[in-house]
Amino acid sequence: MVREVVTEAQAPPATRPNMKDGKVTHPDMMNANLVKAEYAVRGELYNRAQDLAKEGKEVIYTNVGNPQNLGQQPLTFNREVLALLLAPQLLEHSQVANMFPAEAIARAKKLLAGFGGRMGAYTDARGIQPIREEVAAFITARDGHAADPENIFLTDGASVGVKFALQALIRDASDGILCPIPQYPLYSATITMLGGQLVPYYLDEAADWDINLESLRAALADARARGLTVRAMAFINPGNPTGQVLDAANLADIVKFAHEEGLMLLADEVYQANIYQDDKPFVSARKVMYDLGEPYASSVELASFHTVSKGILGECGLRGGYVEWLNLHPGGLAELYKTASINLCPNTVGQATVSLMVNPPPRDGAAGAAYWAQHDESLASLRRRAHVMTDAFNGLEGVTCNFTEGAMYSFPRLHLPARAVEAAKAAGKAPDTFYCLELLQATGIVTVPGTGFGQVPGTFHLRTTILPQEDVISHFVDKLRAFHEEFMAKYRD
Amino acid sequence: MVREVVTEAQAPPATRPNMKDGKVTHPDMMNANLVKAEYAVRGELYNRAQDLAKEGKEVIYTNVGNPQNLGQQPLTFNREVLALLLAPQLLEHSQVANMFPAEAIARAKKLLAGFGGRMGAYTDARGIQPIREEVAAFITARDGHAADPENIFLTDGASVGVKFALQALIRDASDGILCPIPQYPLYSATITMLGGQLVPYYLDEAADWDINLESLRAALADARARGLTVRAMAFINPGNPTGQVLDAANLADIVKFAHEEGLMLLADEVYQANIYQDDKPFVSARKVMYDLGEPYASSVELASFHTVSKGILGECGLRGGYVEWLNLHPGGLAELYKTASINLCPNTVGQATVSLMVNPPPRDGAAGAAYWAQHDESLASLRRRAHVMTDAFNGLEGVTCNFTEGAMYSFPRLHLPARAVEAAKAAGKAPDTFYCLELLQATGIVTVPGTGFGQVPGTFHLRTTILPQEDVISHFVDKLRAFHEEFMAKYRD
Repeated sequence: MVREVVTEAQAPPATRPNMKDGKVTHPDMMNANLVKAEYAVRGELYNRAQDLAKEGKEVIYTNVGNPQNLGQQPLTFNREVLALLLAPQLLEHSQVANMFPAEAIARAKKLLAGFGGRMGAYTDARGIQPIREEVAAFITARDGHAADPENIFLTDGASVGVKFALQALIRDASDGILCPIPQYPLYSATITMLGGQLVPYYLDEAADWDINLESLRAALADARARGLTVRAMAFINPGNPTGQVLDAANLADIVKFAHEEGLMLLADEVYQANIYQDDKPFVSARKVMYDLGEPYASSVELASFHTVSKGILGECGLRGGYVEWLNLHPGGLAELYKTASINLCPNTVGQATVSLMVNPPPRDGAAGAAYWAQHDESLASLRRRAHVMTDAFNGLEGVTCNFTEGAMYSFPRLHLPARAVEAAKAAGKAPDTFYCLELLQATGIVTVPGTGFGQVPGTFHLRTTILPQEDVISHFVDKLRAFHEEFMAKYRD
Repeated sequence: MVREVVTEAQAPPATRPNMKDGKVTHPDMMNANLVKAEYAVRGELYNRAQDLAKEGKEVIYTNVGNPQNLGQQPLTFNREVLALLLAPQLLEHSQVANMFPAEAIARAKKLLAGFGGRMGAYTDARGIQPIREEVAAFITARDGHAADPENIFLTDGASVGVKFALQALIRDASDGILCPIPQYPLYSATITMLGGQLVPYYLDEAADWDINLESLRAALADARARGLTVRAMAFINPGNPTGQVLDAANLADIVKFAHEEGLMLLADEVYQANIYQDDKPFVSARKVMYDLGEPYASSVELASFHTVSKGILGECGLRGGYVEWLNLHPGGLAELYKTASINLCPNTVGQATVSLMVNPPPRDGAAGAAYWAQHDESLASLRRRAHVMTDAFNGLEGVTCNFTEGAMYSFPRLHLPARAVEAAKAAGKAPDTFYCLELLQATGIVTVPGTGFGQVPGTFHLRTTILPQEDVISHFVDKLRAFHEEFMAKYRD
């Protein structure tokens, strides 16, 4: 056999092998950033819970802010309108007025016209114009500063909007995004998948999880010293998992900081309707920016995300949301529009649900009265549950918990005994993961350990939703308390 | 002023500027791959059409396979079920039997139970188990080879599944994906955004757009010689934009090629229900793979994509679809599941629509009879239109067009006169873009130039859907013919 001699110049560049163990899809052969990404909300705890459920054990899913899964009822009026939109032939049926309130029929007709009569057609990639106008009117009324529908994209839930922004901003591993710690892991997972760097700034647990400007500045300086280009600052208000509501003064600090440092702001405001106290109402970052006036009002690049999944609608399954882009470069906005176009369009039922969220029926009128009675009772109940849950955690030995001012979560700190930390270590688990796994095993309650969100090293937390209904929440609290007492009896130093 | 001397070792790495012209979102400061991506289906022609529509001009959107936008009616039974799912209180209403057929009521009850009674809750990221089982049963019946629900992910339309696959496979600029040319630009746009390389193989226009194994092998060899690692081969059957249906022999060649060369197969089979002739029925790649037996059946990694947007449902706006993953590494499948989890879940209405697609009502029974009458007439009409459109193009001077065996498009070749090519050059446009812009201006017909899909250099095409309804298609053809005659009169050599 003649062995051909190939000089280096003649040889083609080496092609990497495409398989490992005979598989193209071996994880070692996949996009490493994808493999590296973690999403704790559906991670180890969730998988273990699914196994338990398959074994027939009662499992209470408080790991995800999924209100209807824990018994929150959808707003009846909204569902009536959606049903008519999907089966518009009902609008012509002689019995329609016996089955649907007049307001729902009128609203469905109006919305259907906005869709050109066709819920089954692709729309513009930003959603239909009439709903974008309704969103603009809602924002204008909320903030007292006019919004432009051209800046509004409807999306399949808020996550899609967040991804659009991060995908546009992150160019390579030298680009960083300031994110709160603890944070909702959509941010960490998406940044990792895109090959960027999460630049952490720690929320101040001792000050009700407020954003501390000093630590923010320090985080930015540290990242820059490491050679990172910090492109944007994300924040979540009301907080997930932390439940704080930021006041206007704190938000003004953030807007000024973004302006001084030349950063885009990513304002995750999906819990704006979930407010459980009167001292700190929700204030949007855009309102604060416009209230500050120039130079902020016309220069700070800001994206604000909202969703139908939270609030009193809780329509997670329908996947509706929007993003408002402010002060973007027109060319950059066009690039985002193109990105959305590759996705074709947000689903039309989700779009219609956004319309119903931002433009609810007026309180007068029969359907409106029923809607608002259901709405107000649902909100009042969440408010009571925020207290019940916080009080329950603060009543446990070695647990402290800031009050859930807004959003849907309690994020108690677990001061775990040294023996529990050792037991966790022996089991090869992070201490809070160990606690949450034991809790799941003993009670069927699925939570998410603080490690999934990030926390100050050496501190341990867990996240639970406050969503169990009031007729079961005392049962929930009893189970939690009984477990915790046993846990402490076993591991107390 | 003392100038501090900083040695190179002491200096922090240089941070790039974060703005251009005062904007973080200046396109020059964005992810270059995102900016580079093109999506012609919603590109220059579409934007120009929107302007004309704003000016009040009649515009006929044949640029996108969007059946309901051109008058295709949704299947009534499906919409009745969806309406009941969204407003389940109707199921308890005394008048429900007067407004909905019994089969729709029964089906809604069954589906609703599968969703745990809650269309507004997040589901598992792969969709609910009962619908994944229905999809598996559909595939099993179609192919005569059993499918496993564990391999099936429900998705928000087929595009999402394609993105999951490409995102997992593309690691860096040395990774390539074999794609047909012409191709649906979801592939080119997504590959560009992910920073990978599209490796083109040319479909054989002279052989009804079949896949030619010689040119496939040549394309792979060429890519490898350039140092690329080719990870997978994508193909679209029936073809978009080309309309061919691949026969079992051609598919067997592809399966063997993938096995020999160690490539994953990405089978875009979203038009499997759009077949307009009897000689070549749709055959799935997975059926061919299993029919071939070993070593193919248990080794070729294959993803097959399907959707509710096409076929006779045409429910583009509802965003439902699925992907079946075959022979994947279990760890790789787990990574894809994690990726889906970060997206939370596919929308529930889209999931339910997948159920209705794969498990239609039986032909006996009142609702089933009506359903199938509507279905069969819709398919027969599409079949007639496929002929009308092909014949119309072949009747034009200097135009040749392969018959639309399947899918929803005609992709005629335009043999443009040299003077038209010169005029295009003078206008700074590709010749086919020039033709399509003139067509739009003269008639309001929105098409997509061949450049948007790729074509053999020096050839020119356009894509139009065959979707205008039969009562308007002759009007459409008349406009097209009148324009073309004028165009040729103006530019004929």
